[in-house]
Amino acid sequence: MSKEEKPESVSLCPLGAAPAPEQELLCIFGTGDLGRSLGQRLLQSGYRVVYGSRRPHNCGPLPQGAQVMSHETAAQSASLVFLCIHRENYDFLTTLAPQLKGKVLVDVSNNLKKNLYPEANAEYLQRLIPGAHVVKAFNTLSAWALQNGPSDANRQVYLCGNSVEAKQAVAETASKLGFAVLDRGSLKAARELEDSPLLLFPEWRLPLRLAVGLTAFFFFYLLIRDVVYAYVDQGKNNSFRIMVSLANKVFPIVSLIMLSLCYLPGVIAAIFQLYRGTKYRRFPDWLDRWMLCRKQLGLLALGFASLHVLYTLIIPIRYYVRFRIAASTISKIKENQTSEFDITSAWRGDSYYSMGILGFFLFFLLGITSLPSVSNALSWREFSFIQSKLGYLALFFCTFHTYLYGWDRFLHPSTYKWYTPPGYMLSLVVPSVVLIFKLLLILPCVDKTLTRIRQGWERCDPEEDAKKSLLT
Amino acid sequence: MSKEEKPESVSLCPLGAAPAPEQELLCIFGTGDLGRSLGQRLLQSGYRVVYGSRRPHNCGPLPQGAQVMSHETAAQSASLVFLCIHRENYDFLTTLAPQLKGKVLVDVSNNLKKNLYPEANAEYLQRLIPGAHVVKAFNTLSAWALQNGPSDANRQVYLCGNSVEAKQAVAETASKLGFAVLDRGSLKAARELEDSPLLLFPEWRLPLRLAVGLTAFFFFYLLIRDVVYAYVDQGKNNSFRIMVSLANKVFPIVSLIMLSLCYLPGVIAAIFQLYRGTKYRRFPDWLDRWMLCRKQLGLLALGFASLHVLYTLIIPIRYYVRFRIAASTISKIKENQTSEFDITSAWRGDSYYSMGILGFFLFFLLGITSLPSVSNALSWREFSFIQSKLGYLALFFCTFHTYLYGWDRFLHPSTYKWYTPPGYMLSLVVPSVVLIFKLLLILPCVDKTLTRIRQGWERCDPEEDAKKSLLT
Amino acid sequence: MSKEEKPESVSLCPLGAAPAPEQELLCIFGTGDLGRSLGQRLLQSGYRVVYGSRRPHNCGPLPQGAQVMSHETAAQSASLVFLCIHRENYDFLTTLAPQLKGKVLVDVSNNLKKNLYPEANAEYLQRLIPGAHVVKAFNTLSAWALQNGPSDANRQVYLCGNSVEAKQAVAETASKLGFAVLDRGSLKAARELEDSPLLLFPEWRLPLRLAVGLTAFFFFYLLIRDVVYAYVDQGKNNSFRIMVSLANKVFPIVSLIMLSLCYLPGVIAAIFQLYRGTKYRRFPDWLDRWMLCRKQLGLLALGFASLHVLYTLIIPIRYYVRFRIAASTISKIKENQTSEFDITSAWRGDSYYSMGILGFFLFFLLGITSLPSVSNALSWREFSFIQSKLGYLALFFCTFHTYLYGWDRFLHPSTYKWYTPPGYMLSLVVPSVVLIFKLLLILPCVDKTLTRIRQGWERCDPEEDAKKSLLT
Repeated sequence: MSKEEKPESVSLCPLGAAPAPEQELLCIFGTGDLGRSLGQRLLQSGYRVVYGSRRPHNCGPLPQGAQVMSHETAAQSASLVFLCIHRENYDFLTTLAPQLKGKVLVDVSNNLKKNLYPEANAEYLQRLIPGAHVVKAFNTLSAWALQNGPSDANRQVYLCGNSVEAKQAVAETASKLGFAVLDRGSLKAARELEDSPLLLFPEWRLPLRLAVGLTAFFFFYLLIRDVVYAYVDQGKNNSFRIMVSLANKVFPIVSLIMLSLCYLPGVIAAIFQLYRGTKYRRFPDWLDRWMLCRKQLGLLALGFASLHVLYTLIIPIRYYVRFRIAASTISKIKENQTSEFDITSAWRGDSYYSMGILGFFLFFLLGITSLPSVSNALSWREFSFIQSKLGYLALFFCTFHTYLYGWDRFLHPSTYKWYTPPGYMLSLVVPSVVLIFKLLLILPCVDKTLTRIRQGWERCDPEEDAKKSLLT
Repeated sequence: MSKEEKPESVSLCPLGAAPAPEQELLCIFGTGDLGRSLGQRLLQSGYRVVYGSRRPHNCGPLPQGAQVMSHETAAQSASLVFLCIHRENYDFLTTLAPQLKGKVLVDVSNNLKKNLYPEANAEYLQRLIPGAHVVKAFNTLSAWALQNGPSDANRQVYLCGNSVEAKQAVAETASKLGFAVLDRGSLKAARELEDSPLLLFPEWRLPLRLAVGLTAFFFFYLLIRDVVYAYVDQGKNNSFRIMVSLANKVFPIVSLIMLSLCYLPGVIAAIFQLYRGTKYRRFPDWLDRWMLCRKQLGLLALGFASLHVLYTLIIPIRYYVRFRIAASTISKIKENQTSEFDITSAWRGDSYYSMGILGFFLFFLLGITSLPSVSNALSWREFSFIQSKLGYLALFFCTFHTYLYGWDRFLHPSTYKWYTPPGYMLSLVVPSVVLIFKLLLILPCVDKTLTRIRQGWERCDPEEDAKKSLLT
Repeated sequence: MSKEEKPESVSLCPLGAAPAPEQELLCIFGTGDLGRSLGQRLLQSGYRVVYGSRRPHNCGPLPQGAQVMSHETAAQSASLVFLCIHRENYDFLTTLAPQLKGKVLVDVSNNLKKNLYPEANAEYLQRLIPGAHVVKAFNTLSAWALQNGPSDANRQVYLCGNSVEAKQAVAETASKLGFAVLDRGSLKAARELEDSPLLLFPEWRLPLRLAVGLTAFFFFYLLIRDVVYAYVDQGKNNSFRIMVSLANKVFPIVSLIMLSLCYLPGVIAAIFQLYRGTKYRRFPDWLDRWMLCRKQLGLLALGFASLHVLYTLIIPIRYYVRFRIAASTISKIKENQTSEFDITSAWRGDSYYSMGILGFFLFFLLGITSLPSVSNALSWREFSFIQSKLGYLALFFCTFHTYLYGWDRFLHPSTYKWYTPPGYMLSLVVPSVVLIFKLLLILPCVDKTLTRIRQGWERCDPEEDAKKSLLT
């Protein structure tokens, strides 16, 4: 670090201009990147910083204004110690146990992988130094945010620990650095906090894989039907259809299937509850996992639906479409045809578009209520009204939209190229099943039983009762 | 509950794997659905749970691991008691007053209707057991969320109570269960918390009713003008127009009227303030209620505007439109017409579309700033700049868009079928009035007085002063 | 204030119906607008209010139920004093120092301008009355919100102060009034709180100016090329093109340039870091400021892109377009031309639309993750994945979309009217540069060095080391 830039670096901080006498002293163990970044930020926020190092006289460049001491002296001088060292090096701390007694130890460490160790770093640390108050904090922030302060996804400091006072002390420091503090409870939550920076959209994996799989399948399926078939059968080069026409068939198909997959687990769960006669028995694991990713399934489906809308709306600007319309007009004139206005076609087409628009509109509304701030502002009754009632309405509109798209095409043999059904037919299977089952479930007699079960009622199974009395 | 599923149910919880010695004991009164769900969740989160029951030996299935005792013993064993019983059964608690003294009583109850009782359940409870610290909490969560943990609209636990320490204890339990805690003050807020789960979009009712009413009126009005008239007068079957054309006339009309109804109460309020010469006199109740639902009015109007945009954009794909365009081209050729490019039509049409797009764009921006997280991030000056300045600009664009749509049609007698004005004319009344009044209000002389009034200045009314001096 | 309306004003409050004995007494200094509004709200929320005034018997109308006393008596009667007076009048408080000792002083004041005084009002107050506990609070709310309670942008009360207990007391009052409380740390944060109500989108200024500048430049540039040139060269009146065609050229150009300007500073910063061999040296100020407004740049670019989408989608409804298509069909028939379907045009056009749609879709996704509630819910790794990876993909799609728009037009001399390049060419300069540099930066050898630098590694510069050893 050059001499010239240090004053610049300090000028970042409008607070610590004049070092007031009451400045608090904090200790940092570890002079690596994390320790340096954190120290720089602490100094800028008006704290005094002392580094603990094995080689206090030769520990590399440190932020200007920070002191360096041996671990023992540093630990004794401050009541709060930040640990910016790797878990592998925690052992030496046991020798400092007397100095660290009663101090707040802030564990900032992260691991490179999940489940590397049987217990969380912070819990391990607490076991090593039982006399100290270990608080897990700051580890969910990027090094950039530690050095430069809060930004979009780096606004919140999650902390956990067994001592309320220790957490309070760390929370005060965090809010002085400009972060919002969220208490996550006791040290048992440390594992979760340590795993969080390693995660990259964990709950999106399954839905994303499903979306990619469905997209790939339908893309090749329709490629064969729409492009390869035309080439083989009629020698026509339809390859340009890949970019828009094919995409605009794949997207709505995947969207409709995924939307119905959001509502299928709810239907299955209801059947389970009806069959078992109780709500207190756990669902199978696959159903639990499926139900937990419904929101992601729905949002991906909304993404595909939005693409479908955009691809549909540019249809009339396309060269291919304009060419075909002009060609048809010209041929009509040349052959002196007179085409009659077909009121059924007009009704069908307009209903088809209307259903699609209303379905997409409701679907978009569902998406908006999934935004964290909106769903937090709703009561659970309101949220479930929207997600369930309006959701089923959206599914109904979209399914109806697809049926109207098909219309009477299923009667024409030319539809079944190479004996395969068109894509839209395949997409109708799951939503139709979901809607039929939902209809059965809202029949008054079924609905009444289900409601009672969900309110805690249990069907007395005479056999099971018999078994129970035998067992007890 | 079968033997097989109990271990599964415990495996849900990664925390309580090994029951550590320091586990806290909590008491639950009530073995109904709510008590069982809450107990299961508490056990999974690492608490020990004891149920208080009238018939400890015969109280039905309970979560595995929970103890059951008489109410007296159970109350004595824990410092925190969850009341999962109905208000109707609170009476028996008076007999437990000695055991409950100094304990934290968590009132989880809800009523089936609003205003069933003169005082909130929690206040009633506090009156029954004055020695206990009553905290109202968890009642805004669904039973599903109590059993399975936080999900979208079930993340926040609102609590209120008179004792800070009691609230702190409940808050710690709630955050251990994974919920975010929001303190709502003293027990006086209990009524509000008890009403909240009963509400279903209370502030949306009036705007929704208005929207439905306006939509129905304009639908039938335009049905008569566009479909019935054509059938009666020319014997033409235009019924297919219902699905898209009619919808696309109704939606923008309702949207424009509702948007202007957002800004009308502000104008009326300003006139009231100017007339009265003070801001300290309350507005009439109808105006207060109207002003409180402006946001909902605006968001509904935005929904209608979005539908209008989608319905407009699919126009060129419609069968009817394509048929008519082809027919007009064919007839031109057959009759050998040459149509001249009309630069005024081009200007008018393009301005019409431009105004609509810009108006919708600003309107959408207003909608985005209404999202809770966005409006929280704005200062009130920024928020009111957007909602007022940009809002009026959006209203102006949309009104101008409608005037351009009308253009010189109002001069053609054929417009007034059966002596009725077209729908767009009706929709222009309110926005025009609002814009004219707004223009008057921003005249420097009026604006100056209004600003002074809003800063607290009061016009001295000599008569009133006279009255005052007589009265005092 | 008339006698009649006072009961009305109290009826606003459902809480304070029956004045309970334990009602807390609060003191307000200042009987101006702010003091009256705040007092009215406090009374409605169940507090007792006493005003401190110089002329207790002649201080103008006050909310019904409030008492008025001299400053001394009022200060002594309550433990919490709201200061609703201007900083200019703080001097007289020094005479009250004995009465104010140990009291909580809530500074609600704002200034008319930034940086009017060397220190914040609250800090000045604390210096005047060292014995009191000054808390800065409520000043970020509008007078309307103080009088009528929380609304959209007026939900949060920010407070700061040196005494934790004093802040706690103010926080309780604020939450009883219905506000959410956010603690911003010590009194050093007062300056920031006092500046905040004066700000109007400070971080949007630079991006907005840039957007306006770019829009104006490209509007006039294209006006000359598309309208003036046609008029001068061919005498054709193309002026109607201003409303839609021209706008739809300006918007995408500005959008693409601004999107690429979001990513340019990141590239420049990487080059700086590579050149310097360290991440610990501060960037030049212009780069820092540029990096801090990337989000705003991006959101403005998204706004322009959305307008571009809407303007594009209405193309086929325009009178001009319909006229031209009909004219071309008619002329083809009259001249008996047969046009061949050009598969390259179809490929090119469809790819052009597809790239645009996908680019806009990703861009929209970036916009959604910029919403505060969404970005808070993401880990920083997830956020940077979206903003960086998906952001560059969006930039690539949009740039490719523009190249496809250009296609081989750059080979036609007629493109260069009056020797000027068309607008789209100019818009491609910055994005192409950014993409090329980004490609260089992700070359394995460069990427490896950069990653090491960002992890804290520093390149040892032998010269600098030599200098250092000379200096020390």
